[in-house]
Amino acid sequence: MKIEIINGPNLNLLGMREPDIYGKESFVDYLETLKAEFPHVDFSYFQSNIEGELIDKIQEAGFGSDGIVLNAGGYTHTSIALRDAIKAVPAPVVEVHISNVHARESFRHQSLLSPVCAGVIAGFGTDSYRLATEALLKITTRTQNHHS
Amino acid sequence: MKIEIINGPNLNLLGMREPDIYGKESFVDYLETLKAEFPHVDFSYFQSNIEGELIDKIQEAGFGSDGIVLNAGGYTHTSIALRDAIKAVPAPVVEVHISNVHARESFRHQSLLSPVCAGVIAGFGTDSYRLATEALLKITTRTQNHHS
Amino acid sequence: MKIEIINGPNLNLLGMREPDIYGKESFVDYLETLKAEFPHVDFSYFQSNIEGELIDKIQEAGFGSDGIVLNAGGYTHTSIALRDAIKAVPAPVVEVHISNVHARESFRHQSLLSPVCAGVIAGFGTDSYRLATEALLKITTRTQNHHS
Amino acid sequence: MKIEIINGPNLNLLGMREPDIYGKESFVDYLETLKAEFPHVDFSYFQSNIEGELIDKIQEAGFGSDGIVLNAGGYTHTSIALRDAIKAVPAPVVEVHISNVHARESFRHQSLLSPVCAGVIAGFGTDSYRLATEALLKITTRTQNHHS
Amino acid sequence: MKIEIINGPNLNLLGMREPDIYGKESFVDYLETLKAEFPHVDFSYFQSNIEGELIDKIQEAGFGSDGIVLNAGGYTHTSIALRDAIKAVPAPVVEVHISNVHARESFRHQSLLSPVCAGVIAGFGTDSYRLATEALLKITTRTQNHHS
Amino acid sequence: MKIEIINGPNLNLLGMREPDIYGKESFVDYLETLKAEFPHVDFSYFQSNIEGELIDKIQEAGFGSDGIVLNAGGYTHTSIALRDAIKAVPAPVVEVHISNVHARESFRHQSLLSPVCAGVIAGFGTDSYRLATEALLKITTRTQNHHS
Amino acid sequence: MKIEIINGPNLNLLGMREPDIYGKESFVDYLETLKAEFPHVDFSYFQSNIEGELIDKIQEAGFGSDGIVLNAGGYTHTSIALRDAIKAVPAPVVEVHISNVHARESFRHQSLLSPVCAGVIAGFGTDSYRLATEALLKITTRTQNHHS
Amino acid sequence: MKIEIINGPNLNLLGMREPDIYGKESFVDYLETLKAEFPHVDFSYFQSNIEGELIDKIQEAGFGSDGIVLNAGGYTHTSIALRDAIKAVPAPVVEVHISNVHARESFRHQSLLSPVCAGVIAGFGTDSYRLATEALLKITTRTQNHHS
Amino acid sequence: MKIEIINGPNLNLLGMREPDIYGKESFVDYLETLKAEFPHVDFSYFQSNIEGELIDKIQEAGFGSDGIVLNAGGYTHTSIALRDAIKAVPAPVVEVHISNVHARESFRHQSLLSPVCAGVIAGFGTDSYRLATEALLKITTRTQNHHS
Amino acid sequence: MKIEIINGPNLNLLGMREPDIYGKESFVDYLETLKAEFPHVDFSYFQSNIEGELIDKIQEAGFGSDGIVLNAGGYTHTSIALRDAIKAVPAPVVEVHISNVHARESFRHQSLLSPVCAGVIAGFGTDSYRLATEALLKITTRTQNHHS
Amino acid sequence: MKIEIINGPNLNLLGMREPDIYGKESFVDYLETLKAEFPHVDFSYFQSNIEGELIDKIQEAGFGSDGIVLNAGGYTHTSIALRDAIKAVPAPVVEVHISNVHARESFRHQSLLSPVCAGVIAGFGTDSYRLATEALLKITTRTQNHHS
Amino acid sequence: MKIEIINGPNLNLLGMREPDIYGKESFVDYLETLKAEFPHVDFSYFQSNIEGELIDKIQEAGFGSDGIVLNAGGYTHTSIALRDAIKAVPAPVVEVHISNVHARESFRHQSLLSPVCAGVIAGFGTDSYRLATEALLKITTRTQNHHS
Repeated sequence: MKIEIINGPNLNLLGMREPDIYGKESFVDYLETLKAEFPHVDFSYFQSNIEGELIDKIQEAGFGSDGIVLNAGGYTHTSIALRDAIKAVPAPVVEVHISNVHARESFRHQSLLSPVCAGVIAGFGTDSYRLATEALLKITTRTQNHHS
Repeated sequence: MKIEIINGPNLNLLGMREPDIYGKESFVDYLETLKAEFPHVDFSYFQSNIEGELIDKIQEAGFGSDGIVLNAGGYTHTSIALRDAIKAVPAPVVEVHISNVHARESFRHQSLLSPVCAGVIAGFGTDSYRLATEALLKITTRTQNHHS
Repeated sequence: MKIEIINGPNLNLLGMREPDIYGKESFVDYLETLKAEFPHVDFSYFQSNIEGELIDKIQEAGFGSDGIVLNAGGYTHTSIALRDAIKAVPAPVVEVHISNVHARESFRHQSLLSPVCAGVIAGFGTDSYRLATEALLKITTRTQNHHS
Repeated sequence: MKIEIINGPNLNLLGMREPDIYGKESFVDYLETLKAEFPHVDFSYFQSNIEGELIDKIQEAGFGSDGIVLNAGGYTHTSIALRDAIKAVPAPVVEVHISNVHARESFRHQSLLSPVCAGVIAGFGTDSYRLATEALLKITTRTQNHHS
Repeated sequence: MKIEIINGPNLNLLGMREPDIYGKESFVDYLETLKAEFPHVDFSYFQSNIEGELIDKIQEAGFGSDGIVLNAGGYTHTSIALRDAIKAVPAPVVEVHISNVHARESFRHQSLLSPVCAGVIAGFGTDSYRLATEALLKITTRTQNHHS
Repeated sequence: MKIEIINGPNLNLLGMREPDIYGKESFVDYLETLKAEFPHVDFSYFQSNIEGELIDKIQEAGFGSDGIVLNAGGYTHTSIALRDAIKAVPAPVVEVHISNVHARESFRHQSLLSPVCAGVIAGFGTDSYRLATEALLKITTRTQNHHS
Repeated sequence: MKIEIINGPNLNLLGMREPDIYGKESFVDYLETLKAEFPHVDFSYFQSNIEGELIDKIQEAGFGSDGIVLNAGGYTHTSIALRDAIKAVPAPVVEVHISNVHARESFRHQSLLSPVCAGVIAGFGTDSYRLATEALLKITTRTQNHHS
Repeated sequence: MKIEIINGPNLNLLGMREPDIYGKESFVDYLETLKAEFPHVDFSYFQSNIEGELIDKIQEAGFGSDGIVLNAGGYTHTSIALRDAIKAVPAPVVEVHISNVHARESFRHQSLLSPVCAGVIAGFGTDSYRLATEALLKITTRTQNHHS
Repeated sequence: MKIEIINGPNLNLLGMREPDIYGKESFVDYLETLKAEFPHVDFSYFQSNIEGELIDKIQEAGFGSDGIVLNAGGYTHTSIALRDAIKAVPAPVVEVHISNVHARESFRHQSLLSPVCAGVIAGFGTDSYRLATEALLKITTRTQNHHS
Repeated sequence: MKIEIINGPNLNLLGMREPDIYGKESFVDYLETLKAEFPHVDFSYFQSNIEGELIDKIQEAGFGSDGIVLNAGGYTHTSIALRDAIKAVPAPVVEVHISNVHARESFRHQSLLSPVCAGVIAGFGTDSYRLATEALLKITTRTQNHHS
Repeated sequence: MKIEIINGPNLNLLGMREPDIYGKESFVDYLETLKAEFPHVDFSYFQSNIEGELIDKIQEAGFGSDGIVLNAGGYTHTSIALRDAIKAVPAPVVEVHISNVHARESFRHQSLLSPVCAGVIAGFGTDSYRLATEALLKITTRTQNHHS
Repeated sequence: MKIEIINGPNLNLLGMREPDIYGKESFVDYLETLKAEFPHVDFSYFQSNIEGELIDKIQEAGFGSDGIVLNAGGYTHTSIALRDAIKAVPAPVVEVHISNVHARESFRHQSLLSPVCAGVIAGFGTDSYRLATEALLKITTRTQNHHS
């Protein structure tokens, strides 16, 4: 079971940026905890601030892994190109957000990605990534049972 | 640990309604599976098609349980009164949806409830309820550690 | 042939409310005239001011009768939950309005129910109910011929 | 009792156009059935793809007949000039649509004509014309009783 | 002089909900103060979280009392059905709000009820109810003088 | 000095239509009064309910007369094609309206033609045509002086 | 016959401001031409850049003259207070504009004043004032005939 | 206890303007009644049609009196500058309207001032001023008790 | 191979209208060039300023030719009836525009026809017609290969 | 070098109004600092709460000084009349704001003045005036060099 | 004659992505066909998922080639920066789309690029590129004739 | 004192692109002038057409310099990701524009960055950068005085 975690713009700052809100833990540290919780999952991790590199990675992982956990940050609300990439690949993509985007500025209430993702998980801090992993495991199992 | 699951309008039809989309399992049957997976959680379940009865129940469970899993169905997008109820109670509420509401009609893209919920989980079928339970367990643990 | 007539909020006041516009006849009185005109139809009648009770009744009649004539009053324009109920049941639903809603305030110009109803009849006073009954008889006949 | 049926753009194609949706019967054929059902009504029929010819006919029939059944097709949603014609004549006009326009593209949800018509009937196939005729018979009777 | 006070959703929580904003006094306690201030007024009180029950009560009190003080809570901004009820009854209705709704979320800036109420009082805490009572006393006096 | 007066849809009904508002005089009768008031002007008159015939006439008169007085009726607010015709011809066009369109329905507040007309005169009954003629005489004089 | 001409903000600059567009003649100079053309009319003239002074003058002239020619300049599109003043006085007000406001920025397309004015004349340069005077003379005559 | 009553544009016409709606009493006459009802309150009164003079007075009274009753007339819906003035001064301001502004034109439904006022009272005729005075007396008492 | 070229309102003026923009060549002259370039294509040509005549022609050519090149001029942006005609016929329709409509007024940015056309070509002057012909040749070939 | 500084509504309260945000220094005091920093500039200063007086001053200084620094306060977002004044005068106008208006209420995000000003400076406290002066010095120099 | 073909995000997946819609041919394969059809044209090809790299290439080719064929994919609808690049370079740019973007989601109906491109070709599959090449050849010829 | 100047898309073309508007000086040349004017400031300069590289640089300079002067070009109006980067770093960012963006297309009137920048300077040509530097020097001084 291979899962790619893809983080978009500014998520490399986790732990440094507004620590009273986002906590002091960096994403790389959190990733260790996550891996420990799912020893049988083969996680890869990619972060970029560049929209097109995220598209490149979705294309690559979308054909080469079993599922993608995607936090597209600010691109969530503006990128039709990312949406097209998600729609073009066979692997299921789960959209995650650390904060509750619906409780923030109105331009964050609309996601261009949600309609083409398998599902959405938002507002649980970094725990959103764990829940997304759980969701992907279930989706994959269901599909395998369905196919076999 | 007490969790109240509250289902809104038309969710009593699960298993009967468009079974090719929603499956043939009723929610009451699914609930047994869910309880089995979390033996230490004390689940209660309530369903109503009446907006005001959902408010009554949120008020009651919001003061008397540790967390609420809420699928408000069609009221999600129209009820300021439900939103006020969620905001008025101390227990955390996780908003769930069986289908990916963002991939449906545009009037389902805006949730009036999300800004006052702890978080949102949408699109994973009935598995959304399991993920919401997991999320609530984490939230409660974190809060308890924080308090003790 | 069983037809359920469902009236929503404030339609219990017919005959009392603005009689110069709506006439002095109560709906219960009108119902007798209607029954007399269709002696072979088995009519049931339900009225409630409570949105959720209307949903309950649509669910019940939607599985147990051959067709529904629905005047959802003010809920026509605001209730996604009613719409979901109509969509979830097999019986055809004809939407009726006593007044010409399109000639009134702009918030009455949009019906959330119309897209999931079999058809719409508006503006003919209580005669709208007779026309809806006629329409349902035709729909049902057509379907039966189609099936047999 | 004289009733004018006026059909707008593309309704001359009925029976040829998307027959799986609209059926294989042309409107001229249907008209015979309709006449048979109302032997005492004197029907006239007019079809044009030209907006201004429809206005000409509404002006003529609006002063010379007892009622008009109007399916203005695509002009329903764009023609203030047709609306002004309907408002200018004494005969009652019933707006009909073969399909449920509310379940189609959003630009078909708003009718410029409805506010000045006696009533609206939509979604019952060609049966909408029969229902409109019934409605007109009732309106005329009521008015005559009222006047005598 | 009979006045009905009708409170909508979540107003039963007054005193329990966000006490730093709304104070610690329940509405039932406040009612005693209000009655003491108007010894000659015969007050009745009704609260419900169910929209349709509020409509039922407006219908009843709208024909059976001299005036209504209505705080419809979250339904103020979404309920056409409540608006229709207010319009249908002869007794004058004064709309009140405890908080200044205009200084809150934008979906609270528009009231569907105001256009059919006698007047609006908002922002003075529970004192809004006293002012509404004063307003009703004046309206009734004026009407009586006018009629006699 | 040649002036073409062009009237659009439903203006042929002047004198017959809502006479309490529009008066009992037909436009043809009014035209005589107008001609009498400007003996040196060579007036032509054209009316059609057909948008394209109005365009044909604007094209013809726009190259063959000194000015056009245009009341496009309901097409004023919907016809980009009429606008293009006005813009394409050298003769100045004055837009007139009998009623004050700005005091009517909101869809009459926006004119697609105004931006390409020389000027607009609205609300003075049939006197709007006299004022438009006066305006055209001035425009033409000014242009001639400018050119000579 | 007394007519008040009221000019709003920046119209005192006529002749100085963008002379290639507005010409080199000041309004005061133009006024002499106008008076010469209507020797039997008693003209008064007022200009102010202050919205409230324009209201003061409309109140005064609205009760003390036979008609008002008003060019409210930039306040045309923003002043509800001016609109209320026009509505409150008995004298008819004709709205004029020197330029064709409909061919300029979109915020100039909507006039708040038009719905309460007798009529509108726009786009004929200073000749708009002469046409407005003609219109007022006609309106007054018509009213006098009607009254006597 | 010092209270400033500030009336905006066109309120000087009260008693003269549309007397069937607004009554025949001028505001100055009404003021005597008001003073008689509150003998211990020291009332000042100011009216202007000039937006900026209203701002001047709000600044002055906002630092020099205990409360302001403000009817800003048409400026209510357009003046950010008035809003800034209200926000800048320490005295509480109660917004009043004689008519029910919510039942009038849509551009009167939005008040720019409400969000920065202590509260709003609308629709009770001149009695709105008495109710506002009552409200201010309560606010001031509460604040004094809170401070002492 | 039969291709119908249909030109809408004002395109008969090509060569006369704003020649610095549109050139001095009439469409009829251009047509000769076009025919010369495709000697094996059987071209027909139709122009009308009347919307309904364009619909008539689309219906006729839509069943009787292999493809249609349509420049609907100003009707492109307003005609649902034309759209319905295009949708109703089997022949592919290519939408063309001489100018780049997207670089003009905002009401020209939305085409009601594009969603039901095979494709769109805009901005290349009369060369747009040649490109549309090329496109139709390819479409037809592809379809024929596909069918045989 | 003559520069006019013009301050709009409520800026006379600087130093008194919300001192924790705007500081304790009045604008008149700040002006001394500013003059000291530019000893060769001849500054004039004008403040008014009256929109029309600001227009008067812009007209005067716009013809009589080398540049204007304008903080129009709340009128920035609502005054077409001020915009017209700025456009009508030859002197360059620099728009300044003390606070970052883009980070405040949405009705402050749109400036009607910016499109006709030379440039905009916002968010630097009173230092915005110094920067505007610097900008004007540069603009004037550039223009002089260009002309000589 | 040098032409640069620039493809934006996800167009590298052509042939792999939804092959039933887009076909099984990759763009690189198609390019060979295209080159064969225009032996005298010197084609270059560039694809990137990164918005800024597309800008870099437009800048380079915009100064170094005779024309650009641009399919900006999802960036078409969101990128002002791409638009600025197109506007900044002298070479003509033809916008192409493989699918008919106007028949897809509403966020694809608006192109930010069209207003600054020479023309637009959409909906003809990969044949859109051939048509764009034809169009560019014509444009260039015309310009050369014009210059020489 | 370290200041980073960051230029976004197409600003590398300065001097080459529309030289009659933007001048013939490249930004690199201008930078020399700027450095000469502030000998004590340590300037760095970065330009990229890639949104994500601008985010990278803002993150780097936002932690490593005393202030940032940012001209984000076309990304100003579309990039939530850039906004998030600015918000995440401690260094103050001043937003600059060479042209007066408010006087251009409407999609340039809204800046997503302004609300999180220290201030905005627009419309002064390259002089905007000098003014931004001055502003930053003042901000930093004020902060240092405040801290020490």
